[in-house]
Amino acid sequence: MKTKPKLICPICGAEYNEPVQRCSCGEPVEFELFEGEPYIGKTVWERFWDFWPVEPALELSLGEGDTPLVKSRIGKELGVKLYLKNETVNPTWSFKDRGTFLTMSYALKAGYKAVGTVSTGNMAASVSAYASRFGLDAKILVSENASDEKLRAVSVYGGDVIRVRGDYGRLYFESLKLGERLGVYFINSDNPFRVEGYKGIAFEIAEELIPDYVLIPTSSGGLFRGIAKGFIELKEIGLIEELPTLIAVQAEGCSPICRAFKEGREKIERFENPKTIAKAIANPYPPSGNAVLKLLREFGWLCVSVSDEEIIEAQRKLASEGLFVQPASATGVAALEKLTESGVISEGSNVVSILTGSGLKTLSHVEGGKIVECPLEGLENCLR
Amino acid sequence: MKTKPKLICPICGAEYNEPVQRCSCGEPVEFELFEGEPYIGKTVWERFWDFWPVEPALELSLGEGDTPLVKSRIGKELGVKLYLKNETVNPTWSFKDRGTFLTMSYALKAGYKAVGTVSTGNMAASVSAYASRFGLDAKILVSENASDEKLRAVSVYGGDVIRVRGDYGRLYFESLKLGERLGVYFINSDNPFRVEGYKGIAFEIAEELIPDYVLIPTSSGGLFRGIAKGFIELKEIGLIEELPTLIAVQAEGCSPICRAFKEGREKIERFENPKTIAKAIANPYPPSGNAVLKLLREFGWLCVSVSDEEIIEAQRKLASEGLFVQPASATGVAALEKLTESGVISEGSNVVSILTGSGLKTLSHVEGGKIVECPLEGLENCLR
Repeated sequence: MKTKPKLICPICGAEYNEPVQRCSCGEPVEFELFEGEPYIGKTVWERFWDFWPVEPALELSLGEGDTPLVKSRIGKELGVKLYLKNETVNPTWSFKDRGTFLTMSYALKAGYKAVGTVSTGNMAASVSAYASRFGLDAKILVSENASDEKLRAVSVYGGDVIRVRGDYGRLYFESLKLGERLGVYFINSDNPFRVEGYKGIAFEIAEELIPDYVLIPTSSGGLFRGIAKGFIELKEIGLIEELPTLIAVQAEGCSPICRAFKEGREKIERFENPKTIAKAIANPYPPSGNAVLKLLREFGWLCVSVSDEEIIEAQRKLASEGLFVQPASATGVAALEKLTESGVISEGSNVVSILTGSGLKTLSHVEGGKIVECPLEGLENCLR
Repeated sequence: MKTKPKLICPICGAEYNEPVQRCSCGEPVEFELFEGEPYIGKTVWERFWDFWPVEPALELSLGEGDTPLVKSRIGKELGVKLYLKNETVNPTWSFKDRGTFLTMSYALKAGYKAVGTVSTGNMAASVSAYASRFGLDAKILVSENASDEKLRAVSVYGGDVIRVRGDYGRLYFESLKLGERLGVYFINSDNPFRVEGYKGIAFEIAEELIPDYVLIPTSSGGLFRGIAKGFIELKEIGLIEELPTLIAVQAEGCSPICRAFKEGREKIERFENPKTIAKAIANPYPPSGNAVLKLLREFGWLCVSVSDEEIIEAQRKLASEGLFVQPASATGVAALEKLTESGVISEGSNVVSILTGSGLKTLSHVEGGKIVECPLEGLENCLR
């Protein structure tokens, strides 16, 4: 493990020796590439010990990561081998826990007494939970229209939930600025430690198979950048020979990265009036959008958007093989259908799709199935 | 792995060579003890291959089991070493998946086209999910007062949800009888294959430490019997030297096993007017109640009941270290407080408590924390 790894801006190339969160050019920074070798160990943190920017606080782990890779029969219908990386079985039931745990390990070591985040969903729950676990105060900033119901799964962990009236997009940058001044470490969606935590997904996949394609629901871009860096590091040290083709998947109703990619632009633009059922990936101005765009170009990767109808249908298909996910998590499978139909993904390919968060989190949006009423005396007929 | 293991009635001793579900005396049957040795392997199914009554259908696994054992700081306050076995990170977010997967492996092999269960909660979701995964029809029988909201997390998997008007207690036995006639394999709470699946919890705990006490939220008794059999098998083959003391934990408002235990009776009696916040363990006439009672007596184990207030307080404490569980899952920690106070569990003991299911499943019962309102311009003050 490097003792003081450098941070680099992937856009302008500026370098930092201190753990800043963003480059002075406004873009996110990221840690230099790590190298080392894998070890035998129970957790992904131990097996890939050389590859983390800070020592994981193992004694405070809640068991995040090391999630199952489930073979899906949806692949068979489409002529590919499809595997689902089930991140819904993390401690707060989303992939966020991997990044939160690693960032919290840094915050504790750096002496912070309070952490924060800007989120109404998975990240808010994850940061609240780990802050409690690590004994740190939590400041969870949520938008004014976040429902009380949704916030119950956040406030239960005991942090301060603060509903902020005003432009929610500005909150991301305001929180970093204020946090620095007040000694509150903000763990937002593409915090450089958080992004490193997501590398574990790439490491675990590579322990089981070498995918040709990886489908990644993409909002802020933090998850995409983390998985990309994981595979790149594995290739650099010779553990894999080829990089898989990574595919950023967005909802049509909020697809700023795919739009810029398609139009050949180098910078994303704010997506006005976002509207999609996939709330967890509905960031209209993703803070890592330009960095993701650059990765897509550099490696010849892809961005695909899918409609709400396609998302709902994919969510239903996943449930019908036992995996109940939130709408955002179904976008990968929805995109796969398009990509196999159009021949972009060829027959027999190894494909992994990331299931990012549990369907229980968006239960109130789920259409229930039909319920049959039956008297006990007539049960036999009802069972036939 | 034994090819045709015997089933034995733990109460009257009758033996069966066919996979019946219950003894003619009315009590549950259980498989004879298995022996063998552990192997190196990724999943608990592979590592304890010799110990299952049927070959686990690994290619259809959803990744159930192999859950984290989390060290808790609640133990420190109480002067013991407390570890939490986090079963909330199973594929349908409860321990039921272990038993469901193994039973479904049997049902598929035996040629059944349909399976069923009687449940409104964790088991209903689990059986629906795995039925879909295994390509079997599902008949989920629920009581007439089950809310539509609760059933949404069940019907999403695509099985038939049947709301039955009439005595819910009778449904358990009626379903077994009708199922046999109609070729629907009912996977109820203490099905003998299901109970075997729960042994994995004991095996995984023993891979990490030798507990002095294991706290087990107890309703039908299936989970308790499974964990007990797991430890007994480990002792029989010499992998552990002493059995831990197992503690059945019930809610005061529905504690038929603890009541019979305390009163020195050999048979449980129906608990009239059950009333507790811990709905997942509120079975007033547990079908494995007498079998659990016998185990408690035979090994000098314990039964402890806790009040709703104690449960809510324990649920809050668990959340404040990052683990959000349903009320039933908090009963173990609530019992631990009583048992350390009274000196039954002595200082320095190794204690494991089983966290059976996710708090997201009972979100509407959770009291939300305070939410602070704040204008963006005043954010600095709100963060101080």
